[in-house]
Amino acid sequence: MARIIGWGHTPFGRLAETLPELVVSAGREALEHSGVPASEIGGIWLGHFNSGMVGDAFASSLALDIDPDLRFTPATRLENACASGSAALWGAIDAVEAGRVGAALVIGVEKMAHLTTPEVTAGLAGASDQREEAGVSFPEIFARFARAYAAQYGDRTDALARIAVKNHANAMANPLAQMHKPLDFDFCRQVSERNPMIADPLKVTDCSLISDGAAALVVIRDEAARGAARAVAIRARSQVSDFLPMSRRSSTELTGAAMAIRQALEAAGLGISDIDVAEVHDCFTIAELMVYEAMGLAAPGEGHRAIEEGWVARDGILPVNLSGGLKAKGHPVGATGVSMHVMAARQVLGEAGDMQRAGAERALVFNMGGSGVANYASVLEAAAT
Amino acid sequence: MARIIGWGHTPFGRLAETLPELVVSAGREALEHSGVPASEIGGIWLGHFNSGMVGDAFASSLALDIDPDLRFTPATRLENACASGSAALWGAIDAVEAGRVGAALVIGVEKMAHLTTPEVTAGLAGASDQREEAGVSFPEIFARFARAYAAQYGDRTDALARIAVKNHANAMANPLAQMHKPLDFDFCRQVSERNPMIADPLKVTDCSLISDGAAALVVIRDEAARGAARAVAIRARSQVSDFLPMSRRSSTELTGAAMAIRQALEAAGLGISDIDVAEVHDCFTIAELMVYEAMGLAAPGEGHRAIEEGWVARDGILPVNLSGGLKAKGHPVGATGVSMHVMAARQVLGEAGDMQRAGAERALVFNMGGSGVANYASVLEAAAT
Repeated sequence: MARIIGWGHTPFGRLAETLPELVVSAGREALEHSGVPASEIGGIWLGHFNSGMVGDAFASSLALDIDPDLRFTPATRLENACASGSAALWGAIDAVEAGRVGAALVIGVEKMAHLTTPEVTAGLAGASDQREEAGVSFPEIFARFARAYAAQYGDRTDALARIAVKNHANAMANPLAQMHKPLDFDFCRQVSERNPMIADPLKVTDCSLISDGAAALVVIRDEAARGAARAVAIRARSQVSDFLPMSRRSSTELTGAAMAIRQALEAAGLGISDIDVAEVHDCFTIAELMVYEAMGLAAPGEGHRAIEEGWVARDGILPVNLSGGLKAKGHPVGATGVSMHVMAARQVLGEAGDMQRAGAERALVFNMGGSGVANYASVLEAAAT
Repeated sequence: MARIIGWGHTPFGRLAETLPELVVSAGREALEHSGVPASEIGGIWLGHFNSGMVGDAFASSLALDIDPDLRFTPATRLENACASGSAALWGAIDAVEAGRVGAALVIGVEKMAHLTTPEVTAGLAGASDQREEAGVSFPEIFARFARAYAAQYGDRTDALARIAVKNHANAMANPLAQMHKPLDFDFCRQVSERNPMIADPLKVTDCSLISDGAAALVVIRDEAARGAARAVAIRARSQVSDFLPMSRRSSTELTGAAMAIRQALEAAGLGISDIDVAEVHDCFTIAELMVYEAMGLAAPGEGHRAIEEGWVARDGILPVNLSGGLKAKGHPVGATGVSMHVMAARQVLGEAGDMQRAGAERALVFNMGGSGVANYASVLEAAAT
């Protein structure tokens, strides 16, 4: 079973660094943190969406600049839209578990904030089905989920606002987060000049951020964890892909998400009640609401109870997105899946600083590409070193 | 050890099919050819460069359209420029050898020929280092290799022309090839109205084609090969990445290519003289010439002897690119690595039709992303079923 033994994570936000610089920054930090010399890294897996947002269309080997000893190390880019970071981690774990490499460096990266919002919107829209949804923005895609969900289960605008409030509050404890600005319920709930409607019913405060950033992990085979300063086991992982066109999927549940999370929990021999913290894909507040149901935390249509009754709050039964989530930590799309695993690893080791959930032993990560198309779930826990 | 037990391959050329249609066409053919039911495919790996040439920036799940039973099958895109197809195969083999999946579907695809040549050139230029080589076309990048090589070893324009002649002749025996047009030495050797200089000293006949196409493979664990209609062993494989900027690599040898091929041969316990056929990356004729040296077939500076003395000819000691190569078979970039493995698999099974090298037992594949940046080498041979 693979072990995470080190990580790196740039701040998320509007950064001066170029894409190559972000790759090197997070990757070098992870290598140093792991204590694994560059000469022992057997492969590099890069999660990066790109979709025209930067010109670097062949970025896999940029990480070789971290250290001269990385020259000739096999490097590969993986892409699964906003789950590209998890795709890279899965590829690295496969190679480690296959015995092809003893130690893997995983880096997720995106550079978006140098673009105008319409340019970013156009880039992200490349993750939609180009036959049926060409030109449809991602806010509109998730607004369609929100409207279908409301039509079936009733208006949950209050719950969506409370998710935004929670994640902004959580981000206050995360020095790497893009936003350090608490928002109150009334601000998030109401359309206003500063919180305009983006795609009805989603307002600015329902949408994740446009961010630059990178995150990295060092993954090794378990045998090699002995002697590492720290080790986190990926106790179980699952990946589920669903059809790309929205017309062929449910708009009132995240079918693939539910399947991936259920498979990961089953493989771990756990139930959702065994999980202490979760980092989940809140690209829009409606996504987080629907993930509560996909996690089995609430029954279909009852996800709002998880937020309204405080289950997912910082001091709730299952705190969700203590990092601030994509909503407030930021969402450099290729980096997000790796960042989630960094945040989860820190939690289960008790190294999450002010974000720490006391006594957290098991973390669930759920990362999603598109609107429930590429779904990755994993369960992390501390491992012996 | 992984086994290839089926394949699919669209014709290469200017095709009416869209990107999603090409994915489905090659993937469905491979599934049918393998005899593996869709329900038993544990994962899909898609090799695709994209780089703005199509709008489908999140293409991994397109293959789910092949069969309703593929819904929820994990699907991932891999990108390593013109070696994206091999990247996908490597990812699939890792997952199979790790025991994550029992059977994997690998598809490589590109859709380019609907674009103007300047649009394709701009897309492919995304595979260059954007810090040092932004806007430099790929013909110019390989022309720099050709000029550096000529400065060190002497003018080899004759040899380059003969490589083009050979690959066009070979393509005559490949019904899937884009070009079925023999070219003579004088035409390839001379600049003319119909064979203009593209980037000195590379003329049109020194450049591979702009192509649409897809190829696919079904890969399983060896145990499962028993009972398959056919099985090809990937006896050894190697991947080597080099620095992205040309300024940090040799321009007179393909350093990473040589390392990858040497590693693959060593892992197979073979020398180059044990190889019966090779499919190698002739994106430009100068690349094939330099690959002769990277393969150890000729000493540095003596690659021209391999073509001029007939070693790599159809009836030579080591026929190279019996399929016609990228030069005449075509080069839909994301499909190329998969196509090479299909062609090699057919050779070692004696199923290469008019392309067949009599008695071929072992094939070498070399696929390259960028100008020697991402390097994949493998050795294939028939396996027991």
